[in-house]
Amino acid sequence: MITAAVVLIGDEVLSGRTKDANLNYIANKCQEKGIVVQECRVVPDKEEMIIEAVLALSAKNTYVFTTGGIGSTHDDITQESIAKAFNKPLVVHLEALKILEDYYGDRINEARRRMARAAEGAVLHEKMVFQVQNVFILAGIPTVMQGMLDAILPKLEHDDPILSITVKAYVYENELADELALIQQSVSDVSIGSYPFDETGTVKGTNLVARSRDPKRLAIAQQLLQALVDSKAS
Amino acid sequence: MITAAVVLIGDEVLSGRTKDANLNYIANKCQEKGIVVQECRVVPDKEEMIIEAVLALSAKNTYVFTTGGIGSTHDDITQESIAKAFNKPLVVHLEALKILEDYYGDRINEARRRMARAAEGAVLHEKMVFQVQNVFILAGIPTVMQGMLDAILPKLEHDDPILSITVKAYVYENELADELALIQQSVSDVSIGSYPFDETGTVKGTNLVARSRDPKRLAIAQQLLQALVDSKAS
Repeated sequence: MITAAVVLIGDEVLSGRTKDANLNYIANKCQEKGIVVQECRVVPDKEEMIIEAVLALSAKNTYVFTTGGIGSTHDDITQESIAKAFNKPLVVHLEALKILEDYYGDRINEARRRMARAAEGAVLHEKMVFQVQNVFILAGIPTVMQGMLDAILPKLEHDDPILSITVKAYVYENELADELALIQQSVSDVSIGSYPFDETGTVKGTNLVARSRDPKRLAIAQQLLQALVDSKAS
Repeated sequence: MITAAVVLIGDEVLSGRTKDANLNYIANKCQEKGIVVQECRVVPDKEEMIIEAVLALSAKNTYVFTTGGIGSTHDDITQESIAKAFNKPLVVHLEALKILEDYYGDRINEARRRMARAAEGAVLHEKMVFQVQNVFILAGIPTVMQGMLDAILPKLEHDDPILSITVKAYVYENELADELALIQQSVSDVSIGSYPFDETGTVKGTNLVARSRDPKRLAIAQQLLQALVDSKAS
């Protein structure tokens, strides 16, 4: 199984100032590529917390994507933290520096040069994505992050996409729970989830979601779920 | 320092099917109460991952809030996972059962009774919030979660609220980075962050955010930041 984890770096999400938009984009793109996102951690701009999250998740997953903390200001400490995590010095990546100098021309300055620094041995991909071991270092700004992710995804290992179907039930999930557990047992290779929804401010029903790489098994699960829902509607 | 961590439990966020709305609400409410949210983890409906996240974060924080996985269906395993995490048996909480029986009347069933189960010794608060050690177990549906959190927040330890101000700069952050680092050094007790923003699809400027419990120190930081931005505008 090809797996990924996400580390969202930045005080602004944990303080409530901004809502993260990056996890959802990464999760959907991985799903299409058959990569299972196993965990996400949101950590502040604190070196020891970035190091802990990156090391723990790098050891357990095929890939790690970090977002945030790669700008030019004092609170951008992702590159140095990841270098420390892997016991590498932080060095100027000459190819990255050349790209920045060509882009900024006369407007190059110390702050902009900082963005050419990465862990020694880091691989530079398109769109200025640095890779350190199995960790891909992406921007925090969603539009920029999306371009970076899209640039590297074709280079990653992939698997059959994870498909999903949804059967909508206008009954509470606890009216379905017992039969649903039986259906899950009968198609144990399909992952079935139950998600109450709330369309008018009160809980009004349940989305039954089945997920599998195998379209045939998914079709069987869909029939069973639909039959369950139909039986409750009558 | 009073700290909190958040564990969002559920495959649906990691698969990209839904966008989480709970972290932002919890973060803002904690901020008002002076509680520092240090970390958030998003984990799937897998017992060993729920246990790992809850134990790690419970040991490091004053409070942990979990959301999701407390419904009546087979994929709702939060209560049993948290009981296992703390080596407690999962038992029927009699007071919770009575509340459910009174509420559902004739419509009580096995699935609904499951929602009265919690770790032995769990404390039951209003709105059916269970507390196990320093862990508060909340629903995943945002409207329900919000009611539960609002019910327990007044009972928690609190501190002076964490205040913040934002100075908006219509220049790129790397034009400000050097002076910004100096400002951060001169008011080292105030936390200053720099967040590029993007109003028309391209990065157009930078929000400079200062955060502190001390309104006087915050006012000084605001003056310094405003002076920096004004100097760039001229």
